[in-house]
Amino acid sequence: MTAAAPPLYTVEHGLGTFGPELVQLAAALDDRFVRFAGAWQAAAMAYPPLMRVRDLDRVDYFRNFPHLVTLTSRLEPGCLPRYAEQAEPVTTVPAAHATASAYVLPSAACYHVYFHLRDQTLSAPHYVTTAAQCFRNEDEWAGLARLWAFRMREIVCLGPAAAVNGFLTAMKDTVQRFLAAIELPCELKVATDPFYDRRGSRALLQVLAPVKYEFIHDGSVAIASANFHRNFFGERCNIRTADGAFAFSGCVAFGIERWMHALLSHCGGSAQRARSLVEREGAGGSPR
Amino acid sequence: MTAAAPPLYTVEHGLGTFGPELVQLAAALDDRFVRFAGAWQAAAMAYPPLMRVRDLDRVDYFRNFPHLVTLTSRLEPGCLPRYAEQAEPVTTVPAAHATASAYVLPSAACYHVYFHLRDQTLSAPHYVTTAAQCFRNEDEWAGLARLWAFRMREIVCLGPAAAVNGFLTAMKDTVQRFLAAIELPCELKVATDPFYDRRGSRALLQVLAPVKYEFIHDGSVAIASANFHRNFFGERCNIRTADGAFAFSGCVAFGIERWMHALLSHCGGSAQRARSLVEREGAGGSPR
Repeated sequence: MTAAAPPLYTVEHGLGTFGPELVQLAAALDDRFVRFAGAWQAAAMAYPPLMRVRDLDRVDYFRNFPHLVTLTSRLEPGCLPRYAEQAEPVTTVPAAHATASAYVLPSAACYHVYFHLRDQTLSAPHYVTTAAQCFRNEDEWAGLARLWAFRMREIVCLGPAAAVNGFLTAMKDTVQRFLAAIELPCELKVATDPFYDRRGSRALLQVLAPVKYEFIHDGSVAIASANFHRNFFGERCNIRTADGAFAFSGCVAFGIERWMHALLSHCGGSAQRARSLVEREGAGGSPR
Repeated sequence: MTAAAPPLYTVEHGLGTFGPELVQLAAALDDRFVRFAGAWQAAAMAYPPLMRVRDLDRVDYFRNFPHLVTLTSRLEPGCLPRYAEQAEPVTTVPAAHATASAYVLPSAACYHVYFHLRDQTLSAPHYVTTAAQCFRNEDEWAGLARLWAFRMREIVCLGPAAAVNGFLTAMKDTVQRFLAAIELPCELKVATDPFYDRRGSRALLQVLAPVKYEFIHDGSVAIASANFHRNFFGERCNIRTADGAFAFSGCVAFGIERWMHALLSHCGGSAQRARSLVEREGAGGSPR
């Protein structure tokens, strides 16, 4: 067996390894989504690859999604000599050897946006784009469609409700036009998001007005979503608009590996054809 | 306070947040290093953002660097209801609520290259480039020069000793010519690397023949390194050359944030000037 001609990708335990063609396809997809963000003059930010437990708790994350969280810790100082002198193979590190976890891996790219704007007042609608390596524990993995670790590009709008709604409506249209241009069949569906406190008034509101739309490929794989958070993050992070009210927010999220999954399926497994579709001039680069 | 004009970057607890100008500078640096890799027709790969404990143990990682390791875990299933119903703020998760750790965050980008080539025979020298978000616990952090989480781009050569030595010699020259072209003052210094079993014969060999060179900015910050591993990874991962011998390997590593640190210091804090230096035509893009 030689190392020549690596496969397009392999997945093991929800973790993907990508060869050169999919590295290029991922870059082309991200570049396309960044161009969508450019139409809004969104600030391209890079946030830390870890989040504080106490920040995520502020937005009820541990109440709503405790099963998804990937925690981080380090070896207890008292255990270091044991490992330095270890003779037996180490296959796992018992929790008793680890410190408490104050940081976790992100499960979505946009949380940092709200934490970073904490206690600020926005004089105008504020647009940010960022990408993150995200992690979600799932009961089972499914190729590129359901991974433990995946990349997410998001475009976020914060401001008055009207600005956020306008952004989400226009972005849904942008994504639909892009999908039409590359002829990738997807359905736009209303989805439910258990993000908000299920016992509170927001759960009722969600029934009355949809807050999440998903672009579904092949009946089951959400490759993008548009999410209206109302003023949830504004309130929890004390982000205000010029009139002193809590800012509303909304985000559009793109799952890079899921787009690759859909495009490869659409293009008979050809990464090259998928990439040429994504890079095609005029395919969705139009202004908002 | 408004959200306009974000700072170039902020660092908190060894974790950096980067504004648009440094997002662009990081991309320009990575692009430059990928072009270095292109001269070797290196395969651009993307590996998982987590590594298995048992893989790292195979290369003595826990014996040599147990203090650096950032572990990952999830909440014990039995603890999930407690978090779902939590009324008090959550600031840390005690180790007693976490599972054992079978995966850790990478501390360098190139380990995956060797694990991925396990049990393979290379018919010719093999070149790979990859970038990773890396994590190292340190006793203290120092701006962009010493972070908990940082990005590393590596170019790796595997094959016979002569090919690896030729690669490292040429790459040291490439980096030096690039540094000269952008007039970034750095010293090339022999460094010690505690990677190999300190009790074994490799420790003696390291004294006799340098295996690590570092490009040092401002007397203390290593922005790049060239590392000769002899056949350590080839042996541990059973990677062989055509003649059946264990493959030798070497890597050249670039710390993206440290380059930004050095360039910003060199350019009076101007990210724009730093980027124009990095993107300057003819600055090190020359063939090997």
